[in-house]
Amino acid sequence: MAHGVLRLYDHPASGNCFKARLILAHLDEPYERVLVDIFAGEALEPEHRGRNPAGRVPVLELDDGTFIAESGAILLFLSEGSEYLPGDRLERARVWQWLFFEQNQIEPSVATARVMQWRGREAERPDAYEHRTAWANEALDSLEAHLAGNDFLLGDAYTVADMALYGYTHVAHEVVDMDGRRAIAAWIERVEAQPRFMNDLKPLP
Amino acid sequence: MAHGVLRLYDHPASGNCFKARLILAHLDEPYERVLVDIFAGEALEPEHRGRNPAGRVPVLELDDGTFIAESGAILLFLSEGSEYLPGDRLERARVWQWLFFEQNQIEPSVATARVMQWRGREAERPDAYEHRTAWANEALDSLEAHLAGNDFLLGDAYTVADMALYGYTHVAHEVVDMDGRRAIAAWIERVEAQPRFMNDLKPLP
Repeated sequence: MAHGVLRLYDHPASGNCFKARLILAHLDEPYERVLVDIFAGEALEPEHRGRNPAGRVPVLELDDGTFIAESGAILLFLSEGSEYLPGDRLERARVWQWLFFEQNQIEPSVATARVMQWRGREAERPDAYEHRTAWANEALDSLEAHLAGNDFLLGDAYTVADMALYGYTHVAHEVVDMDGRRAIAAWIERVEAQPRFMNDLKPLP
Repeated sequence: MAHGVLRLYDHPASGNCFKARLILAHLDEPYERVLVDIFAGEALEPEHRGRNPAGRVPVLELDDGTFIAESGAILLFLSEGSEYLPGDRLERARVWQWLFFEQNQIEPSVATARVMQWRGREAERPDAYEHRTAWANEALDSLEAHLAGNDFLLGDAYTVADMALYGYTHVAHEVVDMDGRRAIAAWIERVEAQPRFMNDLKPLP
């Protein structure tokens, strides 16, 4: 892969950061981790805004000082040329489709509901919380329907699309009822059985 | 570009669909439009779920019957090999970064607040509505800061990243105050001055 020394600006309890750590583990790629304490507001400080104008993690720094932000962009960048990203243009479009679905439907619903629950906003702002969990349920229903007919998001092959969706789907039970979602449960087991799979996502602090 | 006959499953009032129409206009690529009445629930029906498991528009159909969903995936797929997508891998990662930012931060805040306002939910569910507009303001502040130092999202070159961000940013004034955001206003003018730019986004019905 030859990226030189990679540095990941990271938080151990962020599912988006975990996705970056997961592809790095699959690729057996060494990297340096730099903690950005998102819960102390460090991601919003000018120093981190210089790495990512959006003030968020993860951010990947290449050895020439280039920064790449957004978990989806990091997954695509790192998986290029590997078994985790198809070379075929149509298959690649399918990977993009699921990466965007995740960032547009799963992450903003599941991850935000999770943080609201952790901050006690579930009781303080019940309507905003309910808005997020209803949204999560709709998105997870779509995912369940697709996985009912497919081993992985692209069918037979495990790709970065699975890593992206796994990031928050495997903790969705913290905010919505996942008991009836058997295709998702079976897919989670298949993902976790992949060579070099690891899960080091920490609970919210 | 030689895609054969393209078909776009589309709604005229969707900013995500407008992005697909915009890249098609820039590429001067002919296509057939098929209306999916999202406000009558047509996108959630089995026929459309067969095109996109997530039950959303836009969906692009290629002449071999392949479907590509998600506006970001459609923008990347269609712009491949054109002046609107850089060939360089790092520049391309920067395009991905902005496309994911848009789908994760701008679209779910601005587009959803817009639909809530149109449905009268602004008054019915003030807390959920306020949650969306506060989120929109944070995301637009990040965009404003970046555009204060850049003509386009990637610097000098107009790319599909600008098309993606333009989609909902140019209507954000419907839900948040855009008066102080001068860099965004100047960028909107630069986008609208591009060759073959067009805006056929219709108001919510």
